Amino acid sequence: MLQTLEWTGQSVRMIDQTRLPTQTVYVEIADSRQMWDAIRRLVVRGAPAIGVAAAFGAYLGVRGSAARDARALLDELTGVCDHLATSRPTAVNLFWALRRMRRAAEQAATRDSDVEAIKRRLLDEAVAMLDEDVAACRRIGEHGATLLEDIARGKSTPSKPFGVLTHCNAGVLAAVRYGTALSPLYVAVERGMRLRVWADETRPLLQGSRITAWELKAGGVPVTVICDSMAASVMALGQVDAVIVGADRIAANGDVANKIGTLGVAILARHFDLPFLVAAPTSTLDPDTPTGSAIPIEQRDPSEITHGLGKQTTPDGVDVFNPAFDVTPNDLVTAIITETGILKPPFRESIRTALGALA
Amino acid sequence: MLQTLEWTGQSVRMIDQTRLPTQTVYVEIADSRQMWDAIRRLVVRGAPAIGVAAAFGAYLGVRGSAARDARALLDELTGVCDHLATSRPTAVNLFWALRRMRRAAEQAATRDSDVEAIKRRLLDEAVAMLDEDVAACRRIGEHGATLLEDIARGKSTPSKPFGVLTHCNAGVLAAVRYGTALSPLYVAVERGMRLRVWADETRPLLQGSRITAWELKAGGVPVTVICDSMAASVMALGQVDAVIVGADRIAANGDVANKIGTLGVAILARHFDLPFLVAAPTSTLDPDTPTGSAIPIEQRDPSEITHGLGKQTTPDGVDVFNPAFDVTPNDLVTAIITETGILKPPFRESIRTALGALA
Repeated sequence: MLQTLEWTGQSVRMIDQTRLPTQTVYVEIADSRQMWDAIRRLVVRGAPAIGVAAAFGAYLGVRGSAARDARALLDELTGVCDHLATSRPTAVNLFWALRRMRRAAEQAATRDSDVEAIKRRLLDEAVAMLDEDVAACRRIGEHGATLLEDIARGKSTPSKPFGVLTHCNAGVLAAVRYGTALSPLYVAVERGMRLRVWADETRPLLQGSRITAWELKAGGVPVTVICDSMAASVMALGQVDAVIVGADRIAANGDVANKIGTLGVAILARHFDLPFLVAAPTSTLDPDTPTGSAIPIEQRDPSEITHGLGKQTTPDGVDVFNPAFDVTPNDLVTAIITETGILKPPFRESIRTALGALA
Repeated sequence: MLQTLEWTGQSVRMIDQTRLPTQTVYVEIADSRQMWDAIRRLVVRGAPAIGVAAAFGAYLGVRGSAARDARALLDELTGVCDHLATSRPTAVNLFWALRRMRRAAEQAATRDSDVEAIKRRLLDEAVAMLDEDVAACRRIGEHGATLLEDIARGKSTPSKPFGVLTHCNAGVLAAVRYGTALSPLYVAVERGMRLRVWADETRPLLQGSRITAWELKAGGVPVTVICDSMAASVMALGQVDAVIVGADRIAANGDVANKIGTLGVAILARHFDLPFLVAAPTSTLDPDTPTGSAIPIEQRDPSEITHGLGKQTTPDGVDVFNPAFDVTPNDLVTAIITETGILKPPFRESIRTALGALA
């Protein structure tokens, strides 16, 4: 099984996602400046993966420190974390991971002021975050695979591969291993289910064709790439049995913010009476956001549309609308798959219960 | 008003569509081999425009003929037409136009065996085809603009520009002038309507961003380019009041074959309760095709998806599905705008009546 990022004992080994899908190149990151650069250049991407990468970056930044006492080491760590935080200023998970590393160091310092012990604690914390991400994604996969098996049992054509359509990339390469939306697919294949995945290419940045297709192929899952505009045709042909996507944020009522294009896919799924599944860790559930209308939608650089991949395809001076995300209203969502289980409508209640159990 | 193709008296002057959207270059075509090359290289595209271009190509191919009698000239014309037919072997309109030119020559030959008279007749026929196309598109525009005005009158926010979403290009540059789907927009703007057009970029070949955006801007119609995956968001924001698209073929029951992605847009329009309008000349109505399921869907080259924008964006060896068209079932179509008037459901009856009136 592919892993986006691993700790070799000396350094962080990561797949360079900027070289995909044409080249598979691994980079070894041995200090925090290299990690800053790797996050900045999107060598590593996806909220969970960025968080874990940043945690290791924080450790690597003080590993060789000559600080002679805990206070000096903590000051150095603050400097390292402040710098790492500038690598991708919109990535909420990055800040969360860096806060957690600082807290781990502070707790260690209250118990034992030995500098080397604090450094060891930082490494342990980064490794724990990596392990936790793998475990959470694996559990999402297990819950999701069971749900897919249930859906498949309701179908009258068991001889045909089970068709799953996905949008963008919420797979291994957005996390450490397994991913979120794609984890149920990896686990379902492990369990012997015959799948055919339809991957929307996901304009403007083509995460579907560049990344999802690459990792599913690497993972031995049959995948067909389509343009976003072809999803309706594939559904009309009866090739899709379920849609599964990730989420950037899920409001308290179950409205889902995710990559632009998700809303359209959800509407198509409703039209063709297909289950629309969202797979996301419970950290994505945001009790402080009452509904999707409270989620601000970032506008991205028009050149992503006008100069798609290095070539101008839109005339000069034409207006462009390039929202990063859209919001799928909860009534189009069939189920939310988390590491703690499957949430069903009414989502306000099931989300409250899920978060209550974690508190 | 922009014109794709015009007869200068000596040659055909056309916009070189391969240079859009970054360069506006006109080419002068003075013989049939140049016309063959122009059709082949997509300098000219769109069914009506190809038909008219081929008609002039047939005339240009025999204009300088040294044939001494009608029989010899007709034989030469057959050779020219057979060659022109190979320029774009899937373009039905091309064959139709060449047949019409041959028939015109044969009719002329029965009345007057003078070679120069037959040549004049061929030029007259090509000019007539050009004029007929302009007139038919203009009438589509007038009927469509009236329909848009009716829809606008039903809206509660007259201060906001009327929002129209379109997919692919069925504008001036697919015809000679005005176009089909875009003609109602040009006429509506002439009549003083305030519009905002949302143009789907239309992957894989980006006719929306490259061509629709270019011609609307050239025609002074406000246009915003979006990726196909963003149409649902624009509708959810309340920015779209109607959807208008062209058609490649319309079955006897009103099912519409059009550029891939049209079906998805039609489903979104239904979800958001928006009128879904199809604008097409009556020549697109095909009484011999009972329903959309009888229309074969051509698969195009996978490289349009995998190497879409000049750069490889999909890993080697991954499957690709690249249908050229999709079929929108008649129950998602609000109205069909033709040069003879507006067709409404039930389409089997309204199409039969429209074709009956023409027969």
